[in-house]
Amino acid sequence: MSTEKIQQTANEFNTYVRRMKQMHEAIQLIQWDMSALIPKQGVAQRAEVVGMLSGDLFAMQTSDQMGEYLEVLSTPDALELLDPITRASVLDRKEEYERDKSIPPDKFREYVVLTQTAESAWAEAKQNNDFELFRPYLEKIVGIIREFIEIWGYKDNKYDTLLSKYEPGLTVAKLDAIFGGLREKTIELLKRVTEKEQVGRSFLHQYFAKEEQVKYSRYMLEQLGFDFSKGRFDESPHPFAIGLNPNDVRITTFYFDHDITQSLFGTIHEFGHAIYEQNVSHDLVGTFLATGTSMGIHESQSRFWENMIGRSREFWQHHFAGLLEHFPAQFADVNAADFYKAINYVEPSLIRVDADELTYNLHIMLRYEIEKDLINGKIEVKDLPEIWANKIEEYVGVRPEDHATGVLQDIHWSGGAFGYFSSYSLGNIYAAQLENTLKQEIPNYREQVAAGDVTEVLAWLNEKVYKHGKMLTPGQIMTEATGEEINSEYLVAYLEEKFKDIYGI
Amino acid sequence: MSTEKIQQTANEFNTYVRRMKQMHEAIQLIQWDMSALIPKQGVAQRAEVVGMLSGDLFAMQTSDQMGEYLEVLSTPDALELLDPITRASVLDRKEEYERDKSIPPDKFREYVVLTQTAESAWAEAKQNNDFELFRPYLEKIVGIIREFIEIWGYKDNKYDTLLSKYEPGLTVAKLDAIFGGLREKTIELLKRVTEKEQVGRSFLHQYFAKEEQVKYSRYMLEQLGFDFSKGRFDESPHPFAIGLNPNDVRITTFYFDHDITQSLFGTIHEFGHAIYEQNVSHDLVGTFLATGTSMGIHESQSRFWENMIGRSREFWQHHFAGLLEHFPAQFADVNAADFYKAINYVEPSLIRVDADELTYNLHIMLRYEIEKDLINGKIEVKDLPEIWANKIEEYVGVRPEDHATGVLQDIHWSGGAFGYFSSYSLGNIYAAQLENTLKQEIPNYREQVAAGDVTEVLAWLNEKVYKHGKMLTPGQIMTEATGEEINSEYLVAYLEEKFKDIYGI
Repeated sequence: MSTEKIQQTANEFNTYVRRMKQMHEAIQLIQWDMSALIPKQGVAQRAEVVGMLSGDLFAMQTSDQMGEYLEVLSTPDALELLDPITRASVLDRKEEYERDKSIPPDKFREYVVLTQTAESAWAEAKQNNDFELFRPYLEKIVGIIREFIEIWGYKDNKYDTLLSKYEPGLTVAKLDAIFGGLREKTIELLKRVTEKEQVGRSFLHQYFAKEEQVKYSRYMLEQLGFDFSKGRFDESPHPFAIGLNPNDVRITTFYFDHDITQSLFGTIHEFGHAIYEQNVSHDLVGTFLATGTSMGIHESQSRFWENMIGRSREFWQHHFAGLLEHFPAQFADVNAADFYKAINYVEPSLIRVDADELTYNLHIMLRYEIEKDLINGKIEVKDLPEIWANKIEEYVGVRPEDHATGVLQDIHWSGGAFGYFSSYSLGNIYAAQLENTLKQEIPNYREQVAAGDVTEVLAWLNEKVYKHGKMLTPGQIMTEATGEEINSEYLVAYLEEKFKDIYGI
Repeated sequence: MSTEKIQQTANEFNTYVRRMKQMHEAIQLIQWDMSALIPKQGVAQRAEVVGMLSGDLFAMQTSDQMGEYLEVLSTPDALELLDPITRASVLDRKEEYERDKSIPPDKFREYVVLTQTAESAWAEAKQNNDFELFRPYLEKIVGIIREFIEIWGYKDNKYDTLLSKYEPGLTVAKLDAIFGGLREKTIELLKRVTEKEQVGRSFLHQYFAKEEQVKYSRYMLEQLGFDFSKGRFDESPHPFAIGLNPNDVRITTFYFDHDITQSLFGTIHEFGHAIYEQNVSHDLVGTFLATGTSMGIHESQSRFWENMIGRSREFWQHHFAGLLEHFPAQFADVNAADFYKAINYVEPSLIRVDADELTYNLHIMLRYEIEKDLINGKIEVKDLPEIWANKIEEYVGVRPEDHATGVLQDIHWSGGAFGYFSSYSLGNIYAAQLENTLKQEIPNYREQVAAGDVTEVLAWLNEKVYKHGKMLTPGQIMTEATGEEINSEYLVAYLEEKFKDIYGI
């Protein structure tokens, strides 16, 4: 193939991908609107619009045209000739293409229809506390995913194929090692914490007027450095952040009348996702590389900002005064030290999304164990309620009395998102590992935080993580930033230091 | 052609059009977001997304596939076989197809690029009060539109082709007759009004806190019957309403600190557009018939609700108490009668969008006269500033001292929207004509309004106008509802009765 022909094909490919990315942006904007703004009765019709556009995008991704581009551009010689962004874009699209094309279209349609109906079956099952309503759907989903894995192939463990979908390069072998030490140390620490006197936190659950919560959340985003000229802040039942492109990144949050921590830490969490997306290099716009590199790295940023900054003693040394200005009545008799302890209380509980920073990873690890065994056929769907109850009792020390607070609590499996849960704990692990390097490279960063200044922290994260988008893999990000591959020891050390101090162990 | 073949083609055509409509809905949602919500720096990238989708939609509308469908379905025999909605949809698409296909693609592209650049040239010219900055663009636009008219063809008058684009069936001959009497009577009435003592209205221009204006506008929409389960209410610099589909119709308004009338009547005006769109028959969803039948009929509804209801004595008999509750300080020394007069003051002025109910049509008629002569080559672009100044002095009695408040005040021509302005006055004429029938068929409707009840009025308009969408032409709507074609005498009678009373003539 001549160099000219390759260059010409590369140009055509880039135009084609840019067009796909524009369609993707349109779909994402409509979905954002559906989550945050759409009037109730407008949902059904809009869902058809999203379906139509998503179908078009999938058709472009799996078209013969795409196949031809990839054939020309993914030979070693051609890849050599391409500029780095086009090269990465070719490899990124090739992976998608091969995954999508390998599934027979009929099977794929069956899967899409199944997951669509499964979501409402799950919701009904949860509402009625009846696992049997969901069981047949989940069995079919697991069955199809097992088929997909046979098609996609695997080396050591079938579940690796799912893990690496969300976290490129991740395997069961690695994760067993990473999670093993973390689980053991966490359970040990949790036991010691629960023997101690609980911290006081009733002042967090007074009445907080929504209007004032909105103002305070916005103020907090301004303090942290969210760029409102490149984004929005709105309300939705389920908080989320979405990066339509680096110049339009939107955060939502939700307000509870009697719990200030939900909107406060929800907003800071989503800020972490959003600041990542706002800072991805503009050179990547128009490709699918213009976003966070993996779910785990993304979650590392939401967790870093929520927990390591937002739940740190230093942060509230500076920000407690502002909190007091917004809510003078509620915090009249509280000081920064009390507040710091209260927002870091630890308490074994049943629901993952309400879990504290220490027990949270145990919730993830039990899901990981279950998914791994389920995908490998060591356990079956019908046994899940019992296995779930046993595992959470073993790890967290509580046992659910119903399915709604047990095996049916999460939506993820109804959409076929097996392999996803681990991302949450990977995020915590990555975050602690990055923080360990950060404090070596900027030794006074905690003093800066205590002075209300996070600009140097942001600049460091931008340099190490944000600007690269998907140009680096999670492994490359971690190795280049911290000098080693993923290592959960830093999280263990961080948790031990923090909670031994708070609980006086 | 066999009946089966026609039916099969009809089904395919309907699927194809439904897909086009979904794409149209996506584009409209993105444009709504761009007008109301988008962060400043997100605009450029999003404009590319809209451009891509609009290009796709235009390609579908002018495709060979569309041509084949229309060829099969628009024969008299085929049309006979089709259900009424499909038949109307075929004729609707055929008109678009023929208009779009007849223009050579290069010429069309030239026009699109030209109007895109012309808008910023117009904005700059207006800001610098320099007509010469805009003149070359306007000359090119007028030149291309004259070419388009030669391609599209015309019978009696070249300008007819443009008029009927916005108001099917409308001609210069008809409009000269309709506007002639209206202009004469309006100028006469205006002279008598300006001889009288002006009504007091300083209380409308006190400080009105935005937060309270937002609440009051929302309250007004609730009072009028806007269905919030099928729509939204937001803020944007230029108020507008958009019907994405009957189940998702969105209104925006803008708030001025020192002018309560802008948000109040702006909101009621947009309510008129929105309630029309919310009530279009659901049978039409998925076709381009699911919207108002013409710009003029649409404007009749915004004007009816804004002026004939919202600026009526009876409406404020009921609503003044609610206004006082929202703004007790501002209206402490005012009564409903004072308020009614103040919101109906008449004052000759230069700017169309700020004009009162009486002089507004004069602003439109001068634009109509100018466009008609310009398109027919009787005047040229270079002469517009002088002609404009002379005409507004003749009609309204004021003369602009600069271009920004004269010939450069409106954006319309920069986008090539010749033929559009008349819709605004057609709206007033239609509204008065419909109101004349309404008061015969529901003789106590004004008492109902005075009791705060507009449900019967809404039901009547729904039956006569809203539910039909584009299934009836403007002419059919008016003839079926009022028993006659468009007639401006009712507007003249309405204006005379109202303003003679207010100004004591």
